[in-house]
Amino acid sequence: MECADYGITRSLERDNLNLNPLQRGGVLPAAARKALYEFGDGYSVCDYCAGRLDQVTRPAVNSFLDDLADFVDADAVRTVHGAREGKFAVMHALCEAGDTIVADGNAHYTTHLAAERNNLEIVEVPSTGYPDYEIKPETYREVLEDAADRGDVKLAVLTHVDGNYGNLTDAAEVARICRKMGVPLLLNCAYSMGRLPVKLREIGADFVVGSGHKSMAASGPIGVLGMRSEWEDTLLRRSGRHEKKEIEMLGCTSRGAPLATLMASLPHVVERVSRWDDEIKKTRRLVSELEEMGGIRQIGKRPKEHDLVRFETPVFHDIASSHPRKGFFLYEELKKRRIVGIRRGQTKWFKCSVYGMTDGQVQYVIDSFREIIEKNRN
Amino acid sequence: MECADYGITRSLERDNLNLNPLQRGGVLPAAARKALYEFGDGYSVCDYCAGRLDQVTRPAVNSFLDDLADFVDADAVRTVHGAREGKFAVMHALCEAGDTIVADGNAHYTTHLAAERNNLEIVEVPSTGYPDYEIKPETYREVLEDAADRGDVKLAVLTHVDGNYGNLTDAAEVARICRKMGVPLLLNCAYSMGRLPVKLREIGADFVVGSGHKSMAASGPIGVLGMRSEWEDTLLRRSGRHEKKEIEMLGCTSRGAPLATLMASLPHVVERVSRWDDEIKKTRRLVSELEEMGGIRQIGKRPKEHDLVRFETPVFHDIASSHPRKGFFLYEELKKRRIVGIRRGQTKWFKCSVYGMTDGQVQYVIDSFREIIEKNRN
Repeated sequence: MECADYGITRSLERDNLNLNPLQRGGVLPAAARKALYEFGDGYSVCDYCAGRLDQVTRPAVNSFLDDLADFVDADAVRTVHGAREGKFAVMHALCEAGDTIVADGNAHYTTHLAAERNNLEIVEVPSTGYPDYEIKPETYREVLEDAADRGDVKLAVLTHVDGNYGNLTDAAEVARICRKMGVPLLLNCAYSMGRLPVKLREIGADFVVGSGHKSMAASGPIGVLGMRSEWEDTLLRRSGRHEKKEIEMLGCTSRGAPLATLMASLPHVVERVSRWDDEIKKTRRLVSELEEMGGIRQIGKRPKEHDLVRFETPVFHDIASSHPRKGFFLYEELKKRRIVGIRRGQTKWFKCSVYGMTDGQVQYVIDSFREIIEKNRN
Repeated sequence: MECADYGITRSLERDNLNLNPLQRGGVLPAAARKALYEFGDGYSVCDYCAGRLDQVTRPAVNSFLDDLADFVDADAVRTVHGAREGKFAVMHALCEAGDTIVADGNAHYTTHLAAERNNLEIVEVPSTGYPDYEIKPETYREVLEDAADRGDVKLAVLTHVDGNYGNLTDAAEVARICRKMGVPLLLNCAYSMGRLPVKLREIGADFVVGSGHKSMAASGPIGVLGMRSEWEDTLLRRSGRHEKKEIEMLGCTSRGAPLATLMASLPHVVERVSRWDDEIKKTRRLVSELEEMGGIRQIGKRPKEHDLVRFETPVFHDIASSHPRKGFFLYEELKKRRIVGIRRGQTKWFKCSVYGMTDGQVQYVIDSFREIIEKNRN
């Protein structure tokens, strides 16, 4: 048979400034690129496996997991295929079909899918709505209490930082509420772990999940699942027949290059998390300079506490209405300036991030938006 | 915090002849190494996603899945994280807790774990035992009929080629039996898809799962799940809330480099499968030459129909009993000759494969074993 040409190149997205928040935290440092080379082949991390991925010593998966547990302040961690697979595993281990969980209204769609795959009912904690979309701990408490009055709540899920507005939630306060009510809390840190400090025990959560490809400078798909020791027996329950193997992990999870990159990137990630304040400054500068241009407004909590920013951009929508290239002008003007990551044709609003960019690059992005507005404004 | 040195290098296993059957089918061709470079970063395959991984056109995941469906003769295929995750998804979609499935006695441990994670009972079809360990279709029929008499059997699982003896089962005959009884058949092709021709409809199976890292020259973790059209509604059921998203896939599965390598490798894999007969010849030559040395015996069905070979090796065990390096001598003698992949300290038996090696390399392996025996035999 003849195979089609799948177009397996990505130079546009690699060689240009990419504003897509989904892509900013997953860029590999040199050490992880080298790990890809070393561990590219098939089952490469399994050469010296004696039956448990988390105990492999060459490469030192075991030491890595110790360091990772330390990094996220958890009693135990496992790698999973991604945050969503981590959420599914927690729900699967703790809940039965028909059970109820509580989740915030800014939850990622994969929280809903993980629950749906487990046949769970979700009771939702609404955000404050437009324009801040904030999840208030007080509202979380009300909804949780109300749901608990109507029946057992098996799990509470909170999105640490959501992917629509980049709002950082008060996880410690929600954890306090959950603990008081005896409901375990799963914190979805896909947009936080690896960018900003995430400390499970300090926060008071029971579980954290993170995403290697989203925020930990790793090659996808890989995630992190951290837990308190009291949940190890439940979540890491061993098979009756294969006594070394953990059932929820299906024996082992990330058996290849993504794990090698996550390992190689950890020192880089530890270091960059310590510079989180600088990232916030960069983001706030982006927001204030773009808003000053007129016709651009940051949506979500103010001031920004995360690099993911959602902007309403009537200025670009106005331009599009009379521009010969219509809504495509923005994408095309940016691309000319070697900036990518804003969806083609979209001008009413966009999400972006300058995470990991140098100050010079951020300035270049700001100047580019200004130029595009000045050149095209009606 | 300080991170330990994780020893993220693999030159010993990459630069030497590796006899580990687990590693032979996952070696990347040059095109896949290039794909790793292009798509190494984070969520790299998701630049142009409009909500469904299987419909992404840049890179052309959609065309690739069409070609892959063609390659395995299935109506629909999805990528999953590996064969085990594919098995779990099929069981999860078709069965409920407490249901019964039938599986062969040579099943991989992950078949058991997938069932255990789904709370299913397994009724096992025994093999013929030592020394052939064959799974006979007739025995499969008897066990299936007996299980069906005692209650509903929701699924039959057959290991196409097992990982202990490398026995190729008569999947078409088992499929005929299952079809007659109205029990859907899941064929585990982790050791076959990508090595030898696997044709779902021709065989008559309902589902096939394959492993990219084990047998399809891809970077792990990635697998393939193929199905007949009549199962699409069950297995690819969409979310009520997020209408594009498939629940069993948690929206999407392999979001990164492993998928890019699987895509890049497909033309190579299609080509090599057409040369499967040559691989069998190579394997049979290895078996006959090693058995001629005396004190080495191939276990499993004869003649070999797969590259994975299990040998009983009393000759090496005898040597170990009086060798100053005891059981380590074999590993060390092989390593001196730049041959790896036989577990350190193991001399009673081993599994090996010369899949993908040149005739010259196979001869070198044979000569090396002969030399080691001649030099050390008591």
